[in-house]
Amino acid sequence: MTTGTTELTPRDHPVLDDSVRVDGGVVRILDRRVFPERVEWVEAADAEQVAAAITAMVTQSSGPLFAAYAGLELTALQVRELPLAAAAERMRVAGTALENARPTNNHPREAVEHVLAAIAPATTTPALVEAAVEAARAGARSYRDRSHRLGVETVALLGDGARVLTHCWMDTYLIELVRAAREAGKRFEWVATETRPYLQGARLTSHTLAEFGERVTLITDGMGAAALAPGSTLGRVDALVTAADRVSLDGSVVNKVGTLGLAVAASAFDVPFYALVQAPDLAAPTADDIAVEERDPAEVLHTLGRRTASTLVTEAWYPAFDVTPARFVTRIVTDRGAFEPATVGESYYGAAAR
Amino acid sequence: MTTGTTELTPRDHPVLDDSVRVDGGVVRILDRRVFPERVEWVEAADAEQVAAAITAMVTQSSGPLFAAYAGLELTALQVRELPLAAAAERMRVAGTALENARPTNNHPREAVEHVLAAIAPATTTPALVEAAVEAARAGARSYRDRSHRLGVETVALLGDGARVLTHCWMDTYLIELVRAAREAGKRFEWVATETRPYLQGARLTSHTLAEFGERVTLITDGMGAAALAPGSTLGRVDALVTAADRVSLDGSVVNKVGTLGLAVAASAFDVPFYALVQAPDLAAPTADDIAVEERDPAEVLHTLGRRTASTLVTEAWYPAFDVTPARFVTRIVTDRGAFEPATVGESYYGAAAR
Repeated sequence: MTTGTTELTPRDHPVLDDSVRVDGGVVRILDRRVFPERVEWVEAADAEQVAAAITAMVTQSSGPLFAAYAGLELTALQVRELPLAAAAERMRVAGTALENARPTNNHPREAVEHVLAAIAPATTTPALVEAAVEAARAGARSYRDRSHRLGVETVALLGDGARVLTHCWMDTYLIELVRAAREAGKRFEWVATETRPYLQGARLTSHTLAEFGERVTLITDGMGAAALAPGSTLGRVDALVTAADRVSLDGSVVNKVGTLGLAVAASAFDVPFYALVQAPDLAAPTADDIAVEERDPAEVLHTLGRRTASTLVTEAWYPAFDVTPARFVTRIVTDRGAFEPATVGESYYGAAAR
Repeated sequence: MTTGTTELTPRDHPVLDDSVRVDGGVVRILDRRVFPERVEWVEAADAEQVAAAITAMVTQSSGPLFAAYAGLELTALQVRELPLAAAAERMRVAGTALENARPTNNHPREAVEHVLAAIAPATTTPALVEAAVEAARAGARSYRDRSHRLGVETVALLGDGARVLTHCWMDTYLIELVRAAREAGKRFEWVATETRPYLQGARLTSHTLAEFGERVTLITDGMGAAALAPGSTLGRVDALVTAADRVSLDGSVVNKVGTLGLAVAASAFDVPFYALVQAPDLAAPTADDIAVEERDPAEVLHTLGRRTASTLVTEAWYPAFDVTPARFVTRIVTDRGAFEPATVGESYYGAAAR
C-alpha cells in the first residue's frame, strides 16, 4: 500500500488504524472478532447492516464511531435520487439504527447528531448529500485530531521510559498516544491485559503495539493487581491508562469490564490511573444516567468460539462495562486537558455542567 | 462405582474428590489440564514421575498432596526387597523429588516430612514399608478431616443463602465446605472466576459445584470487582472465599494469581474475604519467606493449547501466585478456628510462632 512516494508500514500505520472504509457502495468493516488471526472484512450494504455489525462486535472501541460516520456517508450516497423530504427521513432512520446499536458506547450517537445537524439547513437533495458526506468525513477527522490531543495530554503526565498498564483496546486513543509520545521524544513500555472474553488486549492492543515496534508484555486479567503491587518481578508499573467509553460529569468512568478492578488496585498501591475520553457526557450527570450493557453470557463459557467452561455450567454473567467511581481515578484526560475526576464536568464545560 | 450398597453419585462424590490412586503398581493421576472435556489418567511409575506430573500441572491445589502421599506409598511398595538402609535412602530420594516439584505449594513437603518421620524408627525393611504405607494413607485421611474442619469453620461465618465468590480451585477445601454446609442445613450460591490461564474455575470449580447440584455463575477474571461492587445486576456478593497455598505467620495470603485483585476490591467494597488454610506456615514469618513460582509465560499466549494472542506478541508474564497482605484479608480460616490475619501465627501456634 502506498500513498505518494511514502510507503505506509505497520510501524507507522498499524492495520487497525484504518479498519472502516466506504468502498464500492458498501461499508467495509475489519472483523475484529477474528483479527489478527484472520484479516476479514464484513461488508454492510446499508446503515442497518452497519448497526448490526456494531451490535455483533465486528468492531468496537473507536470502531463504532468510524462505522457510524461511514454508515451515514453510505446512506447519503444512497438517497441521491430521492426527494429532499424522503432523503432527510431516510438519514434520520439510518441514524436511529446506528444510535441504538449498543447502549453504553456513545460514539454513534455523537456521529449521528453531528451529521443530522449538518444536513438540517439543506434545501435540495444534492445539498443534503454533500453536507452529509462532508460532515461524516470531517467528523471522523475531528475524532482523530481530538484523540491526538488526548495523546499529547497523556504523554505530558508520563515520564520517558514509563511502564504503562492498559486494559482492553483503546483504539484511536492508543494509536495517537504512541504517535504523541514519539513527537515528544518519549518512549514507554506497555503491559496489556488479555481482556476476556473477546481477548481484545491479547489480539488488538498487543498486536498494534507490536506493529508499532513498542515493547509489550501480555498478562491475563487476573494478574493486573499483582503487576500493580510493589516489588513484583515484572518491575514497577508507573501508570494505569485506559480509555473510557463514557465519563459522567462527576467523574465516574464507564469502560470495559475489568477497569474497576485495575483502578481499585492501582489506588491501593499508589499507581496513578489516567482515564481518557474526548469529553465527559453532558447527558450524564452521574453514572446512574449511563446504561451498562449486558451481553450474551454464553461468551463467558467460550473462548474464540470454543467451549472452555465445563458443559455442566449453565449460568454466567457478562456485563460489558463496569463503573469506576471518581475516587479511584487520578485524572480524566480530555481534549481540553487533564482534570480532577469529581469536577470534570465543570472543568470541561464550565458552569453549563452544573 | 459402588461401595457396599450405597451408589456414589457426583451429587455426593464429585469426580475430582478421588483423583489420585495407587493402583496396579503405578500412581494414577486424573489429568486436570483436560478435565472435564476429557477424563484421562496419567500413570506415574515412580515418585520422580509423580513429581514430574505435579510440575506439569497434571494436578494442582490439593492434588499434589494426595499425589505426594501416593508417590511415597508406591515407593514403599517398590523397596520391599531392598536392605533397610537402601530402602530408607530410596524413600529420601523420592521425597526430595516430590518436595521440589513446585516451589510455592507446601503440601508435598508436609507429606514427605510426615512419611519420613514415620519410617525413621523402622529397624527392618518390612517395618519401614508398613510404616510408610500407613503414614501415607493416614496423612491423606488427616488432610481430608482437617479440610472438613475448615469447612465447618467457614460455614459458621456465612449465613444461609449467602452468595460466595471464589477464585481458582479450592479442591478438597471446596468439597468439604459444601459437605459442611449441608450438615449445617445451609445452602450457598456460588460465583466462580474462570481463572486464566488454566481455567481451573471454568473447568474444575464450576464443574464440581454443578456435580454437587449447587448453583454456580461463571465470570471472567476481570469481572470480579464488578461483582463485588454494590448495586451490580448480579446481586450482592456476601463473601470472597478462597483457599491459600501458603499463609505466613503475619497473615499474608499466597494463592493463585488473581486473589490479590479480588481481595483489594472486596476490601474497597466492604465484602469480607475469608482465606482457608489448614495451618499458617511456621517456616514463613512473612511473605518474603515464601517463593512465588513463575511459570512458562507461553501459557498466557495460549488458551487450552490454542494460540489466543497475536503471533506478533513475544513477551508475557505468568506469576502463578500473588501475595495478599493481611490488611486486605478479613479472617484466615484454619483447622483451629478463624483468626485475625495479622496475628494468625500466634493465634494458631501460641508463643512458639513469635
